[in-house]
Amino acid sequence: MADMGRAARAAARVLAAAPTAQKADAVRRAAGHIRAAKADILAANAADVADGVANGLTPALIDRLTLTPARIEAMAAGLETVAGLPDPVGEIIKQWRQPNGLDFQRVRVPLGVIGIIYESRPNVTADAGALCLMAGNACILRGGSEALRSARAIHAAMVQGIVAAGLPANTVQLVQSADRALVGAMLAAEGLIDILVPRGGKGLVARVQQEARVPVLAHLDGLCHVYIDAAADPVKARAIALNAKMRRTGICGAMETLLIDRAALALAPAILADLLDAGCAVRVAPELLGLDPRLTPATPEDWDSEYLDAILSVAVVAGVEGAMAHIAAHGSHHTDSIVTENKATAEAFLAGVDSAIVLHNASTQFADGGEFGFGAEIGISTGRLHARGPVALEGLTTYKYVVRGNGQVRPS
Amino acid sequence: MADMGRAARAAARVLAAAPTAQKADAVRRAAGHIRAAKADILAANAADVADGVANGLTPALIDRLTLTPARIEAMAAGLETVAGLPDPVGEIIKQWRQPNGLDFQRVRVPLGVIGIIYESRPNVTADAGALCLMAGNACILRGGSEALRSARAIHAAMVQGIVAAGLPANTVQLVQSADRALVGAMLAAEGLIDILVPRGGKGLVARVQQEARVPVLAHLDGLCHVYIDAAADPVKARAIALNAKMRRTGICGAMETLLIDRAALALAPAILADLLDAGCAVRVAPELLGLDPRLTPATPEDWDSEYLDAILSVAVVAGVEGAMAHIAAHGSHHTDSIVTENKATAEAFLAGVDSAIVLHNASTQFADGGEFGFGAEIGISTGRLHARGPVALEGLTTYKYVVRGNGQVRPS
Repeated sequence: MADMGRAARAAARVLAAAPTAQKADAVRRAAGHIRAAKADILAANAADVADGVANGLTPALIDRLTLTPARIEAMAAGLETVAGLPDPVGEIIKQWRQPNGLDFQRVRVPLGVIGIIYESRPNVTADAGALCLMAGNACILRGGSEALRSARAIHAAMVQGIVAAGLPANTVQLVQSADRALVGAMLAAEGLIDILVPRGGKGLVARVQQEARVPVLAHLDGLCHVYIDAAADPVKARAIALNAKMRRTGICGAMETLLIDRAALALAPAILADLLDAGCAVRVAPELLGLDPRLTPATPEDWDSEYLDAILSVAVVAGVEGAMAHIAAHGSHHTDSIVTENKATAEAFLAGVDSAIVLHNASTQFADGGEFGFGAEIGISTGRLHARGPVALEGLTTYKYVVRGNGQVRPS
Repeated sequence: MADMGRAARAAARVLAAAPTAQKADAVRRAAGHIRAAKADILAANAADVADGVANGLTPALIDRLTLTPARIEAMAAGLETVAGLPDPVGEIIKQWRQPNGLDFQRVRVPLGVIGIIYESRPNVTADAGALCLMAGNACILRGGSEALRSARAIHAAMVQGIVAAGLPANTVQLVQSADRALVGAMLAAEGLIDILVPRGGKGLVARVQQEARVPVLAHLDGLCHVYIDAAADPVKARAIALNAKMRRTGICGAMETLLIDRAALALAPAILADLLDAGCAVRVAPELLGLDPRLTPATPEDWDSEYLDAILSVAVVAGVEGAMAHIAAHGSHHTDSIVTENKATAEAFLAGVDSAIVLHNASTQFADGGEFGFGAEIGISTGRLHARGPVALEGLTTYKYVVRGNGQVRPS
């Protein structure tokens, strides 16, 4: 790991000075080499999948692991999207002149060396590597052991493209061994790795957050709420509640708890019927239990549960203040939405809820870098430092101060 | 510590919503109460100083610990400066609309709860507390045990002002015990404290960085360089080298190593004579040793030494590339300066040196939030995440995304 770290640091110095066109060229060439290596990648992946089946991986994990020609094409097209994103490096964030004539600029620069620890999705090898590169960073990738052959094949193709564009081969490094001790070495790589990004399930992210000596950009839970206010438009309320829960139940932006204003209980039967009809299990507060025989009672644990499944808890709250108190007590600072036609109530919620993303009259399922217009994302941060919410190229940068003078010295 | 953390979190929720005028009023009233409590503060400080003398503290530490009427007035005036700073909270950093009609804003919000761990300077109690408050944060202060009575008296006065302005008494909390286990509790206070800011010597900062489970905003070393290029103006080179080293030798922005271009050795005699005449011990590379009998040879350890004293190491390098290689090998990513009249060389240095602050034709002693026009600073960060360089109010904030819609749901 020390050798990889030093190689990454050397590559990072070259990348920090690389022009946008060269970085984009490297990512586009990587896409081309991935397309050209399709047969190799599929063969490597078939071996991973065969082992996975033999080792009893669940069908869901096998699906995540499996590549198809269409998935490889999507991976390559994703790289081309990244290559077309605006380059954050070199942006002059602020500039000003002090009375002594010194000119100050705050200029965006790459973070340096980024460590990515992920699980069985082979496409992370390509898209995380490309995002780091476009933001001028070197990276060290450590994928799941069950996808190692796939990752190796994808990585080898990417490196061909990177080298063809004149950038260092060590721009994107892959940990080539399945030895779990190497994850520990990454977590402890202070000074070698500037930031770690875990991408995967709760177990992985929690381990990284607990053990890492290197700063971590991570989100643990997406315990997202939709609050239906007394002044909600009934049509919007039904559409948003149904979409926030059921469009995709397994993503971090999916609603897990619906909060209904005590003064909006008249809206509850239609909203809950929509959800039940769509196949959602709905666990409700006592006030709602009689509305439909398919409803079951919620327990206190439900308010703290991220189901990531077709299950919903529903609480009754006393207005927007009650909703904000429930979210402060049980939320995960990820994404929360209010449905109301009352502007003042909406602004109170948007200001008062301490989450990375707060929405008014929109589904929580918009919590996604693509929907924000970022083109891609490396993750959604629920931490408070450095970057919050969907993290794209800009979140993979830092800044420095450039000060230009004409011989100024500081008076004593 | 858990009780203090919960109290701070509750106060932070009030502060996050407090208008600028109320926060400024609280800080101004705190200044007034500090002035009014001058006699109490001086008495408490006299007791701390008497104990310090009895316990054999060095004269330098006793000087740092000692308050005078003038220092108390400076403390109060410093708070009034902070009260007049622009409020970063609520700033709309970016806003845009997506094609589906969703309006996005990235809005600056407070960080939450900030822990400050410091040593014997009593004024940190006032200025760190005020900076946290103005940025909308609650804070927990833990000063050095040798200054505990002084800190208590200052803190009591501040709280009177804060409460008089209608803000929670727990806005600024002081750890009232000298028990060192409480520092450990702060370092482990994940979820209670959002960020720790150690302010003090290397030993303190290193302990906090090594042991903290909470993110740390800190700088360890200021191993700052000035590079004199072949194209340097001789007058500027002499003035900047002398000022960067000798204006104040004990601050983190003081030059520790002077780098002289091999093609600029003709400038060396005058530059080194200025420094020697000013009382600086100068340790030089072999090429320079014959220039003056007062020069002594530098050892390899000198290139990695932060003297914080009237001592300087001087290396000879091969042009700007040699200077950048020396800084990459030995620098601390704090502040480095180039002296040259060649614009292209200057830009190569400004782009290529990976430090929080890079200067052209100016003294490294400008590395200070006040000189940047920030009005105040909580520290100078040499880390790469969240905030870099002088950290003022803006560095004590984060952001959230506010999304306003009209019933949008995400298509599948």
